[in-house]
Amino acid sequence: MTTTYRPLTEQEAIEIARTIEGIFPEGADLKSREIGDGNLNLVFHITDPASGSSLIMKQALPYAKVVGESWPLTLDRARIESESLILQNKLAPGLVPQVYRYDAALALTVMEDLSSHVIMRRGLMDTIDYPLFADHISTFLARTLFLTSDLGMNQQEKKLLVRDFINPELCKITEELIFDDPYTDAETNNIPAPIRDAVEAIWQDGELQFEVALLRQKFLTSAEALLHGDLHTGSIFITPESTKVIDPEFAYYGPMGFDIGAVIGNLLLNFAAQEHWSSDADARARYRTNLLTMIESIWTQFETKFRALWNEQSVDRLASAAPGYQDFYMKRLLQDTIGFAGCKMVRRVYGLAHVADIDAITDETVREKAQRLALAIGTALIRGNRQAETIGHVIDIVKKEGF
Amino acid sequence: MTTTYRPLTEQEAIEIARTIEGIFPEGADLKSREIGDGNLNLVFHITDPASGSSLIMKQALPYAKVVGESWPLTLDRARIESESLILQNKLAPGLVPQVYRYDAALALTVMEDLSSHVIMRRGLMDTIDYPLFADHISTFLARTLFLTSDLGMNQQEKKLLVRDFINPELCKITEELIFDDPYTDAETNNIPAPIRDAVEAIWQDGELQFEVALLRQKFLTSAEALLHGDLHTGSIFITPESTKVIDPEFAYYGPMGFDIGAVIGNLLLNFAAQEHWSSDADARARYRTNLLTMIESIWTQFETKFRALWNEQSVDRLASAAPGYQDFYMKRLLQDTIGFAGCKMVRRVYGLAHVADIDAITDETVREKAQRLALAIGTALIRGNRQAETIGHVIDIVKKEGF
Repeated sequence: MTTTYRPLTEQEAIEIARTIEGIFPEGADLKSREIGDGNLNLVFHITDPASGSSLIMKQALPYAKVVGESWPLTLDRARIESESLILQNKLAPGLVPQVYRYDAALALTVMEDLSSHVIMRRGLMDTIDYPLFADHISTFLARTLFLTSDLGMNQQEKKLLVRDFINPELCKITEELIFDDPYTDAETNNIPAPIRDAVEAIWQDGELQFEVALLRQKFLTSAEALLHGDLHTGSIFITPESTKVIDPEFAYYGPMGFDIGAVIGNLLLNFAAQEHWSSDADARARYRTNLLTMIESIWTQFETKFRALWNEQSVDRLASAAPGYQDFYMKRLLQDTIGFAGCKMVRRVYGLAHVADIDAITDETVREKAQRLALAIGTALIRGNRQAETIGHVIDIVKKEGF
Repeated sequence: MTTTYRPLTEQEAIEIARTIEGIFPEGADLKSREIGDGNLNLVFHITDPASGSSLIMKQALPYAKVVGESWPLTLDRARIESESLILQNKLAPGLVPQVYRYDAALALTVMEDLSSHVIMRRGLMDTIDYPLFADHISTFLARTLFLTSDLGMNQQEKKLLVRDFINPELCKITEELIFDDPYTDAETNNIPAPIRDAVEAIWQDGELQFEVALLRQKFLTSAEALLHGDLHTGSIFITPESTKVIDPEFAYYGPMGFDIGAVIGNLLLNFAAQEHWSSDADARARYRTNLLTMIESIWTQFETKFRALWNEQSVDRLASAAPGYQDFYMKRLLQDTIGFAGCKMVRRVYGLAHVADIDAITDETVREKAQRLALAIGTALIRGNRQAETIGHVIDIVKKEGF
């Protein structure tokens, strides 16, 4: 066993890959390709061209490079990612990559190769239809959230999970880049010049900041369930038939709505960006209608599955016995979801990290229109989150803002 | 150093006491008296009659005896108690006993002797006036809660404290005995026969159970601040001049209102019990008025001090910048406080553990009247907690229910 951390070479990666049982034939001629972006992790794609077998090795680097700057980042995130994947695979089988091995000393996770899938953000930019996604992601969300909450697991064991998934460094990134910096003239913001007026209006908007402060406090204090913590469409590998949620290094115990809102917010960012990606107006309208149907279906199926788990597997006597509590809980969760979806959208328009859906639009006028639409939808979701009664509230906002 | 746990003998306690620096003169003839109740902890009172110096040694036992039954209980609670006391003494100097030493292997805390003080519950039963208590306890609450919250301390360091104070076994006691068992026909309940009708009415009261379910969820998930976790009047040593909060073995990161509500709920239990303890009607009315003034003053002073800390020492930019957020936060905290105060009262009337204020009333009719009054106030606090706008809401309820 390796006992000290060092970034692996491709040859070392191959040697480790050989020791994983049941993947490669004895004596296979393995190839390695480093496919990571080099900012946070090394990612080795190890293949045996002869048998077609393959696997992925992801090694955390002890620093992060963002906008050219380097800051130290805990290797513990590899443990958090690996343990999350293993737990999620137990709770929602088949919806995350299988982990073959976790090596703590090397901060290395060896896992299932998903290169038959594409990153969902890319797929959406190509307007590919994913008819099973709402079913898959609602199952993932309902099962991972319910079964790690006080409703669905032993409340004392849950506290030990809270402890294991304390994740200060990665949470700090979210706390600053999603729940603070976009609402003030912070250096980290990356503001497209044409929409500066809209951004400055947000900095002056006390009502909006009040709602964000409430959502921020939930992110800081509400240990409801083990979240993925970064569930945007870049954290989902997909085909029309299969969905795999990846990269849970931001996992921690937080408010359930943050994960559900991340999915919905990112679908709405793609919605806003469809000004460009489908230039045919009819096709664009159809695609957008499909996206809204998908969003509605994600919540509706999530709610159905979550309530079914509650009715069948609750471990909380009072939560099940108190009349009206489940309805109240689901409504509040919807409201959180809507508020967090809005926060996820706003930061992706002019915060530190944007999304390709919008930024890859080459026509400046079209890009600005997409940015303004994303901001309008995002701020409306934040502003109205505590008044929402049904998922129709989201659809109404989107239609009102520019469909 | 001792390396294995064993319950200490008095002679061993004396030998350890000699090694604490700065307390006893060289060669002092120390006496030890075991003064614990023998259920959870050994408590040695070590004195040097010649110099008058003394200290307390509290050793956790690996089991709890409650209603004759023995169940295993983690020795880790000694660490939690000791670390809490040390932290509280930094944040609110002089309001908790000073810790001289903590020995992890022995689950032993050596600390300041407070035998010049009395247990506040006893003092209140003797209708002693404590004119400084509201000032002292509001300082303790404002400083320990604010300065361990995301408002008052670095949010990444706070997460490490959350981890250190994960306290599953002691939290389980609260979750069951306060937030579950009283609301169903649980075996642990200890129901006085004369009020069985009132208890059964609570078991049928869906509206009440709904509110308790909400409060229970806050206890399970809201990691707002490091709580004392068991702040009843039996956890307070007091004189008219001095207040010392003791026994924080239930400490964990939870909702702030739980600590404030514990204090107020226990004062109201004493209020209800004053049917007996002051048999002179005028004296009783005066004493009760004083108690209500004390309760009002605890909240008012707490709020003033908490807001001052917020305005002067906030580390949360957005929480301070968002217009109206502080007012909203304080109102919600008051509402939590009122709800938790009610829960604390209800369980002390017919749950597993009662309070001496009520149970020591010898006249059955008077005792029943006190029990019914405590239940009426407690359930009204729970029922109305989310509508409360000011602390006057509590006073109004008490006056309406039977003053």
